[in-house]
Amino acid sequence: MTAPETMLASVLVEPGTVELRRVPVPALGAREVLVRVEAVGVCGSDTHFYESGNVGDIVAEGPVILGHETSGTIVAVGADVDPGRVGQLVAVEPQRPCRRCGYCKDGRYHLCPDVEFYAAWPVDGSFSEYAVIDDDFAFPLPPSMTAEEGAMIEPVSVALHACRRAGVFPGARVLVTGAGPIGILTAQVARSCGATEIVVSDPVANRREFALAHGATAVLDPTAEGLAAYAQHFDIYIDASGSPQAILPAFDAIRSGGTACLVGMGRTVLEVPISTIQQREVDLIGTYRYVNTWPAAIDLVASGLVDPAPLVTGRHGLHAVEEALTMGRTDPAAIKTLVVPALTEAEA
Amino acid sequence: MTAPETMLASVLVEPGTVELRRVPVPALGAREVLVRVEAVGVCGSDTHFYESGNVGDIVAEGPVILGHETSGTIVAVGADVDPGRVGQLVAVEPQRPCRRCGYCKDGRYHLCPDVEFYAAWPVDGSFSEYAVIDDDFAFPLPPSMTAEEGAMIEPVSVALHACRRAGVFPGARVLVTGAGPIGILTAQVARSCGATEIVVSDPVANRREFALAHGATAVLDPTAEGLAAYAQHFDIYIDASGSPQAILPAFDAIRSGGTACLVGMGRTVLEVPISTIQQREVDLIGTYRYVNTWPAAIDLVASGLVDPAPLVTGRHGLHAVEEALTMGRTDPAAIKTLVVPALTEAEA
Amino acid sequence: MTAPETMLASVLVEPGTVELRRVPVPALGAREVLVRVEAVGVCGSDTHFYESGNVGDIVAEGPVILGHETSGTIVAVGADVDPGRVGQLVAVEPQRPCRRCGYCKDGRYHLCPDVEFYAAWPVDGSFSEYAVIDDDFAFPLPPSMTAEEGAMIEPVSVALHACRRAGVFPGARVLVTGAGPIGILTAQVARSCGATEIVVSDPVANRREFALAHGATAVLDPTAEGLAAYAQHFDIYIDASGSPQAILPAFDAIRSGGTACLVGMGRTVLEVPISTIQQREVDLIGTYRYVNTWPAAIDLVASGLVDPAPLVTGRHGLHAVEEALTMGRTDPAAIKTLVVPALTEAEA
Amino acid sequence: MTAPETMLASVLVEPGTVELRRVPVPALGAREVLVRVEAVGVCGSDTHFYESGNVGDIVAEGPVILGHETSGTIVAVGADVDPGRVGQLVAVEPQRPCRRCGYCKDGRYHLCPDVEFYAAWPVDGSFSEYAVIDDDFAFPLPPSMTAEEGAMIEPVSVALHACRRAGVFPGARVLVTGAGPIGILTAQVARSCGATEIVVSDPVANRREFALAHGATAVLDPTAEGLAAYAQHFDIYIDASGSPQAILPAFDAIRSGGTACLVGMGRTVLEVPISTIQQREVDLIGTYRYVNTWPAAIDLVASGLVDPAPLVTGRHGLHAVEEALTMGRTDPAAIKTLVVPALTEAEA
Repeated sequence: MTAPETMLASVLVEPGTVELRRVPVPALGAREVLVRVEAVGVCGSDTHFYESGNVGDIVAEGPVILGHETSGTIVAVGADVDPGRVGQLVAVEPQRPCRRCGYCKDGRYHLCPDVEFYAAWPVDGSFSEYAVIDDDFAFPLPPSMTAEEGAMIEPVSVALHACRRAGVFPGARVLVTGAGPIGILTAQVARSCGATEIVVSDPVANRREFALAHGATAVLDPTAEGLAAYAQHFDIYIDASGSPQAILPAFDAIRSGGTACLVGMGRTVLEVPISTIQQREVDLIGTYRYVNTWPAAIDLVASGLVDPAPLVTGRHGLHAVEEALTMGRTDPAAIKTLVVPALTEAEA
Repeated sequence: MTAPETMLASVLVEPGTVELRRVPVPALGAREVLVRVEAVGVCGSDTHFYESGNVGDIVAEGPVILGHETSGTIVAVGADVDPGRVGQLVAVEPQRPCRRCGYCKDGRYHLCPDVEFYAAWPVDGSFSEYAVIDDDFAFPLPPSMTAEEGAMIEPVSVALHACRRAGVFPGARVLVTGAGPIGILTAQVARSCGATEIVVSDPVANRREFALAHGATAVLDPTAEGLAAYAQHFDIYIDASGSPQAILPAFDAIRSGGTACLVGMGRTVLEVPISTIQQREVDLIGTYRYVNTWPAAIDLVASGLVDPAPLVTGRHGLHAVEEALTMGRTDPAAIKTLVVPALTEAEA
Repeated sequence: MTAPETMLASVLVEPGTVELRRVPVPALGAREVLVRVEAVGVCGSDTHFYESGNVGDIVAEGPVILGHETSGTIVAVGADVDPGRVGQLVAVEPQRPCRRCGYCKDGRYHLCPDVEFYAAWPVDGSFSEYAVIDDDFAFPLPPSMTAEEGAMIEPVSVALHACRRAGVFPGARVLVTGAGPIGILTAQVARSCGATEIVVSDPVANRREFALAHGATAVLDPTAEGLAAYAQHFDIYIDASGSPQAILPAFDAIRSGGTACLVGMGRTVLEVPISTIQQREVDLIGTYRYVNTWPAAIDLVASGLVDPAPLVTGRHGLHAVEEALTMGRTDPAAIKTLVVPALTEAEA
Repeated sequence: MTAPETMLASVLVEPGTVELRRVPVPALGAREVLVRVEAVGVCGSDTHFYESGNVGDIVAEGPVILGHETSGTIVAVGADVDPGRVGQLVAVEPQRPCRRCGYCKDGRYHLCPDVEFYAAWPVDGSFSEYAVIDDDFAFPLPPSMTAEEGAMIEPVSVALHACRRAGVFPGARVLVTGAGPIGILTAQVARSCGATEIVVSDPVANRREFALAHGATAVLDPTAEGLAAYAQHFDIYIDASGSPQAILPAFDAIRSGGTACLVGMGRTVLEVPISTIQQREVDLIGTYRYVNTWPAAIDLVASGLVDPAPLVTGRHGLHAVEEALTMGRTDPAAIKTLVVPALTEAEA
């Protein structure tokens, strides 16, 4: 197949405004592949970008295509890539490190100061018909896996990176605050690492129910019961809420020598119980995206140890990206919304 | 209850001869508990001791009670132990470290040069009505668990220690040679650590079938197909056979940077492919018993991530210990045989 | 020698008041040794206890003997200790863990919830003629080492535990804030771990000079130059000041993926730059005392890789403990003050 | 400066024959630098290649330039390299990984199956006037370091990789067998990692003397005293001899839970004491070259913690490479021989 020259894309033109536009298909480098996008998950950071025009330090100073939880089919390959890859269904790891700095050579390429990331302006994401990525960041899916599961490898990777960094181990007791997609997948990945008790805390009842059905061994409502029953109980605490009200009380629920791992973002500074960190040697760590997670995340999903499919609660075409971006605000039952470029207005 | 003064025990009086004798109940120290033995697994080392009078460097220079895979009910406690523990069903970790040497204080008490171990002459084991153990080495079982599962915590611990030492991780590909109880439980524990591909190799067909039904994702017959299809494929290799014919070919099936972990014992020296260890940085490690495994092993079984119950293929009373010890030789379908002191000749 | 029945001790009777009293020599348990105290360092926590009657959560509800940086000569041993140890010069690790809980058995006995510690009321310390300690916490010194160096093994242990926890490695760049005894020894221990750049920051000029002469490769005055020249420069940051003004600016000087380790205590809560912890994966850890450090700390001093002797700037007898406790306030040149029970008023 | 078109190089044309030839200067890629070679150490593998035409699995099927311990001055840079680098004195890490495989992205690029290495046929080394290398594998030296020290960064890296893999720690007791350049540098690097006892064993008296003067805390003659005095004494054992006679007895000198790390190569299989590996959990690991060592190795030398300069015992021009390659055989006092292209026959 000849690569197309133009494509439809949903472009964020300014905060609060996305437009469906016809834009050039991105140029294909010698070691890159061109992917026809099959499914793209909507992440909270996409919604934040859409609403505010920034995520943390990254500010959109011009139009940008959002979307970075991507799967697709390889339709063309660069000059130095095996042409046999055309036709592969792949999950896309949406980053492009420099490969030459100390971080890249030491196995922590996500910390590369020059890493490029989908949808982090000025780099485009994949709410579009096509996207390009380095060939070694396009991971083939086994035949048993669907494109939608492929798109979910990105949030599974967030969860896996957190569980790795936090050191979840066989027999671990794990507390997760926040029962959004990352919280639920963290519970599932923690289970796949051998955690035998996984308590998920969330103030929203239907989210707790969903978590209990899909990974948690127990749930609790922090506005009602709190964590008093779990004093110094958990080996590992992972926050997937970004909320200081969730994070601070959790420290008392971590045993001495345990770890608090903050995944959910949103604050510049945070007041933490430093005496717990010191006198009980509870380590405080954070996670940034992921590194070297795709192969294992795919294997975990393919093996059934992690099952992200039930999290998908909605699908929208490129014409309805705005609706997709705001679904989390408008539909309390929404967990993970996908953008599926092949969906036309008629089908939606 | 007043602790009894004598008890029935099956005593190894010389290689090849066990006798049912009435012997004194062991004295109960201030920090010890007296356990009425409910179930004791027969280990290959028991059989070896029975047949040869030694295991490795440990030689029986006099009569000894074998048996170290033990569960039971606490019937009496020493002066400094909470009397509320009487009545607890416990899994026994059958070792007594010195608690004061560098190994004990550094979390590796199984390497303590003065550690005492059940059934390692002159220390008696638990093919008997009662046994004593330090209170902190008698681990309460949750109500959902049976005494037989409690006895199986010991072989689960062997598997868990191997998986920990070998570093099994989410998404790992693991090869296990030997589909006896340790090999099968290693497959299960590896699965609980997130291994997504677990190939178990054994020359005996019914053992392969059992492994495939209880933990392996695939099995192979080393006498037929061999490992040629798995060149540099596995992250981790764990041997549970002790057989050089199994071990040596396995190195070529380990990827560079992987780990070979030898659990199965039996040799003093072994010729290994040192160029693989050096040029491909495949680490060669061994495991000795276990350390700090009981709590996690109990949680893994209680949670259902590991299920040792189906491995139990026979139960014998104290009068039939000889039969129990030789079951592995005489019954090809035997996987794990238990000694159950409460079984009388009439019931057997 | 027969153990004496009474001894002189400097007793903290209420905040701000120490009295030299004659008190019973503590009873000697079967596995304990009685040490004639040779030298005891004054720690900031002793001074805090003296002034405020508490350190963190530990409150003196009655009289207590302070002092925990202790060396001495064994003068008597319990029934189960080798009598050949009498006469040994030892460095005392001033804690007594339970040896039976999960922390104790897993190599982190300093986190044992039941650990007893010298001078943490109601446990007495060693500003006294004699003290008792478990035999395996009394570490023999090689003939080349002095009693004063033996007392300094405690602060060297604080530094070593911090460098271990923080993961100082060959070639590491390390920032230390605070040039008191712990800061200076941390610089020395970091050097012994292979750190090639060790910058010590302190607002006091003579402390900077001392640090530069005894471990730092460079020093800086935070009130003048600040850390601007070291943006994302250090692999590891260790605070030995306890001061938020020192800690917060230091995060910008840590490279992505690095570690901040807080040794100096004093706060219950602390506002930290959580976006750095998350987006740059800078881990925040604290240290509590030490665990399994004495043998290595003694070897480091005996080998000359760490040299604590020059830090000793004053010696006082038991009659002058009040002066010793306040030296840090009254003498700007004081670094480490020792209590030496053998010093009489005449000699002082 | 314009890059030259031809250069002098010492070419291995067949086993036992090197010729000084004029050959094309290698082409300079966009991200490469052209280095005027200042100094190149002669490695045992060069000598083995010269004598036998192979090292391990690598066979010279045609002419090849040997030499891989290289320093030099950048004289030209590729199109995508900062031109400001011209004139830099650099130490060359002589490998070129693919940067895209799982090993490369996970921080173990030395295990990359497609890695290219200097002097591993068909890749040329640097016994020549010029050599090319990727810009990020040419590490600038600080002004205090000489070109000869720069060439020694390669063997320092071998030692550093071994000490990292073996886990040398502050207070460690280390045994090194073999007092050639790698053994001596391993002793020095171990010291820089905080090892407090470093015993080097070698049957040759002058090598022992040299080791004692340059890194060892003690030496021993294995043909005389043996290791009997060191039963289970060392935490870590590193072999730099490649000799089974050295390796096998060393296992008894390693404490339980310790590590044996084999650096010296030469065998395909080796009979090892597997019961020690199992019953005492002594890990057996090997090392292959190095990974991510240059920055730390340069810092260790620049800081004076490691001092390789005294090891250089001879310098030869390109016309005398044969003599350089055989120096280890002909001169018992030779430790490290350098090839210095600038040396002419007249100067030699």
